[in-house]
Amino acid sequence: MSKLTDVPKRILIGRALRSDRLGETLLPKRIALPVFASDPLSSVAYAPGEVLLVLSVAGVSAYHFSPWIAVAVVVLMFTVVASYRQNVHAYPSGGGDYEVATTNLGPRAGLTVASALLVDYVLTVAVSIASGIENLGSAVPFVIEHKVLCATAVIVLLTLMNLRGVKESGKLFAIPTYVFVGGVFVMIAWGAFRGLVLGDTMRAPTAAYEIKAEHQGLAGFALVFLLLRAFSSGCAALTGVEAISNGVPAFRKPKSKNAATTLALMGGLAVTMFCGIIALAMTTKVRMAENPATDLIRGGVPIGSGYVQNPVISQVAEAVFGKGSFLFVLLAAATALVLFLAANTAYNGFPLLGSILAQDRYLPRQLHTRGDRLAFSNGIVLLAGAAALLTVIYGADSTRLIQLYIVGVFVSFTLSQTGMVRHWNRHLAVEKDPAKRSRMIRSRAINTFGAFFTGLVLVVVLVTKFTHGAWVALLGMCIFYATMTAIRKHYDRVADEISAPEAPDDDLDDDLVRPSRVHSVVLISKIHRPTLRALAYAKLMRSHGLEALTVNVDPAETKALREEWERRGIDVPLKVLDSPYREVTRPVIEYVKNLRKESPRDAISVIIPEYVVGHWYEHLLHNQSALRLKGRLLFTPGVMVTSVPYQLASSEAAKLRARKRQEWSAPGAVRRGPAAERAKEPSVAKD
Amino acid sequence: MSKLTDVPKRILIGRALRSDRLGETLLPKRIALPVFASDPLSSVAYAPGEVLLVLSVAGVSAYHFSPWIAVAVVVLMFTVVASYRQNVHAYPSGGGDYEVATTNLGPRAGLTVASALLVDYVLTVAVSIASGIENLGSAVPFVIEHKVLCATAVIVLLTLMNLRGVKESGKLFAIPTYVFVGGVFVMIAWGAFRGLVLGDTMRAPTAAYEIKAEHQGLAGFALVFLLLRAFSSGCAALTGVEAISNGVPAFRKPKSKNAATTLALMGGLAVTMFCGIIALAMTTKVRMAENPATDLIRGGVPIGSGYVQNPVISQVAEAVFGKGSFLFVLLAAATALVLFLAANTAYNGFPLLGSILAQDRYLPRQLHTRGDRLAFSNGIVLLAGAAALLTVIYGADSTRLIQLYIVGVFVSFTLSQTGMVRHWNRHLAVEKDPAKRSRMIRSRAINTFGAFFTGLVLVVVLVTKFTHGAWVALLGMCIFYATMTAIRKHYDRVADEISAPEAPDDDLDDDLVRPSRVHSVVLISKIHRPTLRALAYAKLMRSHGLEALTVNVDPAETKALREEWERRGIDVPLKVLDSPYREVTRPVIEYVKNLRKESPRDAISVIIPEYVVGHWYEHLLHNQSALRLKGRLLFTPGVMVTSVPYQLASSEAAKLRARKRQEWSAPGAVRRGPAAERAKEPSVAKD
Repeated sequence: MSKLTDVPKRILIGRALRSDRLGETLLPKRIALPVFASDPLSSVAYAPGEVLLVLSVAGVSAYHFSPWIAVAVVVLMFTVVASYRQNVHAYPSGGGDYEVATTNLGPRAGLTVASALLVDYVLTVAVSIASGIENLGSAVPFVIEHKVLCATAVIVLLTLMNLRGVKESGKLFAIPTYVFVGGVFVMIAWGAFRGLVLGDTMRAPTAAYEIKAEHQGLAGFALVFLLLRAFSSGCAALTGVEAISNGVPAFRKPKSKNAATTLALMGGLAVTMFCGIIALAMTTKVRMAENPATDLIRGGVPIGSGYVQNPVISQVAEAVFGKGSFLFVLLAAATALVLFLAANTAYNGFPLLGSILAQDRYLPRQLHTRGDRLAFSNGIVLLAGAAALLTVIYGADSTRLIQLYIVGVFVSFTLSQTGMVRHWNRHLAVEKDPAKRSRMIRSRAINTFGAFFTGLVLVVVLVTKFTHGAWVALLGMCIFYATMTAIRKHYDRVADEISAPEAPDDDLDDDLVRPSRVHSVVLISKIHRPTLRALAYAKLMRSHGLEALTVNVDPAETKALREEWERRGIDVPLKVLDSPYREVTRPVIEYVKNLRKESPRDAISVIIPEYVVGHWYEHLLHNQSALRLKGRLLFTPGVMVTSVPYQLASSEAAKLRARKRQEWSAPGAVRRGPAAERAKEPSVAKD
Repeated sequence: MSKLTDVPKRILIGRALRSDRLGETLLPKRIALPVFASDPLSSVAYAPGEVLLVLSVAGVSAYHFSPWIAVAVVVLMFTVVASYRQNVHAYPSGGGDYEVATTNLGPRAGLTVASALLVDYVLTVAVSIASGIENLGSAVPFVIEHKVLCATAVIVLLTLMNLRGVKESGKLFAIPTYVFVGGVFVMIAWGAFRGLVLGDTMRAPTAAYEIKAEHQGLAGFALVFLLLRAFSSGCAALTGVEAISNGVPAFRKPKSKNAATTLALMGGLAVTMFCGIIALAMTTKVRMAENPATDLIRGGVPIGSGYVQNPVISQVAEAVFGKGSFLFVLLAAATALVLFLAANTAYNGFPLLGSILAQDRYLPRQLHTRGDRLAFSNGIVLLAGAAALLTVIYGADSTRLIQLYIVGVFVSFTLSQTGMVRHWNRHLAVEKDPAKRSRMIRSRAINTFGAFFTGLVLVVVLVTKFTHGAWVALLGMCIFYATMTAIRKHYDRVADEISAPEAPDDDLDDDLVRPSRVHSVVLISKIHRPTLRALAYAKLMRSHGLEALTVNVDPAETKALREEWERRGIDVPLKVLDSPYREVTRPVIEYVKNLRKESPRDAISVIIPEYVVGHWYEHLLHNQSALRLKGRLLFTPGVMVTSVPYQLASSEAAKLRARKRQEWSAPGAVRRGPAAERAKEPSVAKD
């Protein structure tokens, strides 16, 4: 049994994909940025609005705290980016948070991170699509009027695309991401130019509204609590930052350095966009409320439930570019598209993490085979189902979904950074070179601060969001954790049960007499090509005894069979079992058991002729009794079951299908880098 | 291949059930009557109402035609009963309409009857439950307010009961059927006594309403058409009459005579009840309309959509016994119960017919094993699903469902009676004994009249009901017919493809070189008890070549395996396949294909160690790669696949479950009679 900390093995996980099949190329930074940053950059589409939304609880006056909250988010962002730059250098193999936590903090921590990440992937899909729909809806009202329907439709569409195995290209990510980033920057620049140089007064569509504070004049602890809650919401901007640390092998050389640079670039862009949008929102007097229907006041009366609160980014764009202008619509479309791409990244990450967990026997072993379509599909469907469920339950409302989102992210941030501290400690214990030592000490300091800060944020998020929905995410994590622990326990128990005794010819099968001969039994229903082939093969096997066996379900047919048997002069004795109740399985099982009882030193080899057909519906029409009998025979000790297939003409169709299925390649390959590269790459962690 | 007309075989179908397991007993007439008559007798609960409903189209004045329609129904009933008494004597084996039609008119006619019967079973469930709910609803308003929900709930309940395999007893049928029959007779007698002797004026709750005729003053062809439509609806009373002819073996001796007597008894009861209810309905002035909301007038205004039109039987009971009286409630409950029992008979008939059709290869072969729980369950679920669908589509409205019902019944009546005419013709051609001849001629005359009359009714039903819903039933029949034909064609094609060439050692496998040696390959992943057992068994097989095969998915593990292999001194060569892309299936398949290419005279025996576990969720965790590999290997010519099972401790649980499942007995046994009896019974048709 392999140990969990068996790093070289985990490094090999990256090796599964055939590069010539995927047409993979190493990513230059300009492509890597959009590929990895669609998730974290897209979160600036909803994070600023969430900050304003929470502050509005204390009335519009509380909005003046928003720059301070932005500063806190920026500091946090820099901390996290700096921390992950250390990860990138230390684990160029693309070891994600799961690997870092498992290697350095042990399997429980690793499993906690894995549970958090799995929940996170689900929420990435739900939140990104909900927010994408809301952004699209600011330009296309139909979409927002059928929010849940449209969001579910997008989930279904992404699911189908991923199940089919779309071929990805970096450009697919590049164009909308750059249009989005470019659009936001043009908006910030044009807004600044209009406001500062032209002196225009830009007004958001909600600028004239008043906010009815739910708690007027908050102060002291209550105010601090509210600000912390607003900060927690703003932290939504950090989701997805860790993605680059998983994707180092996809970068051009020098990989770690390029990845670190891209990480820094992404951090810079995200921070600028986040702050720019907050600043524009303050300038254009965007007004948002948690419950717009009652808390937004227009002309002295609440605005009512018919009102749709557009996202901050779209309100700002309307103020800067003008409602319905080309740039406004373009930005709305690009924002929605980037958010859908962000959701798509979860479709790649979820099954990949699943395969790593399967490798460590926390999930069914067959998921381990990456690129395996069936395993991949199961992961995709599970992810899509969970995301669709949340979308329907929470009415595709990004604000409500975000309450669940941030817990998981910070659980994995915190554990990963803590793991990195241990990592450096371990390396410092053996490293002698002073230059390397000082670099390690610096890295350790950064990761320590990162661990501390993200841990603090985790506590803040838990305290301020628990009742707002974070408990759902925690519950999800617990379910994943418990399930995976149970699976691992099962595998361990079985491994124990089947482990071979040391002495090679010792008491294997000590509960049974060791068989020394084989008695073969060929099951016959009629004489046709499949049974003749099975008989021919059985004869080749030269077992110690050979007989043909048929069950007398229908005396007339049995009689005909016997006659044909003799007429053809088949030189294998034909044994007929009576079955007064027209059963097939039971008489055969009983006969085999009796054979074993009579000569316990014989192993019984039951040989079953089978048709192989090409379509599932044909399968329903054939072999069902054989299948059932096989299933039952496997429970009988001392028996082996041999299928002798006879390929019907229609089986060609299935063969072609199977071949086609093997050519299939799992989506998400671009982010993971070429197979060969991952395998060759030496790893600092390979200790 | 067996012929369709192979009667002895079909007779054996009755032999499947172990009598000591079922505790079966032969049925005395007093128990047989309720067992078989719950279906036909229960139809008097809705048939009279349907007649009045149709007549109301021409206004209340048309009600005076109802006695004439009753007379027509009575004549038809006597005809059908007399005809089936001939069937009972001619086919004491319990051959149903399908057998009679197939044997005498050929497979197409038989398949048409089978399709009609399958549709009929579905409609028996839908109509009986809808009507049962309506009758129950006349006493318990909640039920009628949630009609679709309650009807679906009853379907689900019956389905679950039948899936579990309830043990039936004749008494289960006897009590409610006798209460129902007794109740109706008491009602008729008490009504007659009150009306004729006491001179009471009994008034139905709807007596004061007027009916707005949709077509006032109908005459000529239109009137005849309406009367024929009313007659068609009244024919609903005949559904289920054929049931006894399937159940002859369940009767005490003399079987045929007792069955015929019971049939006559049932006809007499049904006719009396039908006429009695019509008469009471006329006396108490029951008013029913096709569209009560608009066509029933109370105090000059239409009654509106809130009105619930209670069944005739309940309105009459209210008039005779008084609303809410004990007898009224008892009769409503007994009526509902008998109708649910009638629905339950379809749950027995549907899978039984399925097993007969599977025997003739019109349905998947595994359905043939009667009492097989899985096959039985599939039939039950299909039946329940179709019935539930119809219930929801037609809003559990018995009147709308009945439009679909009668076509199928009369298709099988007509074909069965026509078949009987042929049957007698054939027997008359060889029979010499004048006494027997004259009996046969009499029987033929009865069946001829039956065939003619039921055929006429079929035409009438088709003409008058086609647009009202009969097309749905016909469509259903066509779908069943087409599916079954396709299945049969597939089986025939496969039988052709696999039929053995005549010369015993001729050109079997002519497309391939005939193998003369076996090369065995044992698949190894790790060394543990299952693989050691597989190796030990493989060695016993004495094949011409033996090697162990492993796929190098993980170099570290492979190295460990190699070392252990040597350390243990296993005397089988270990071949390692490289798999740079972490696949298992493809390298093995390619290796096996190469072996075949190198030595075409070798058959390859692939031996796979398998774990056997006890729970389905454990199954998800094991053997998945082995299963997939097995599936692929079966498509490779010249390969046989052997599973060497290793029973884990948990497999005991599955063994126990399997044993328990075998003890299970299919419902509907009471009606079919004991197994032994069916087998022994000689048959006139055994020619």
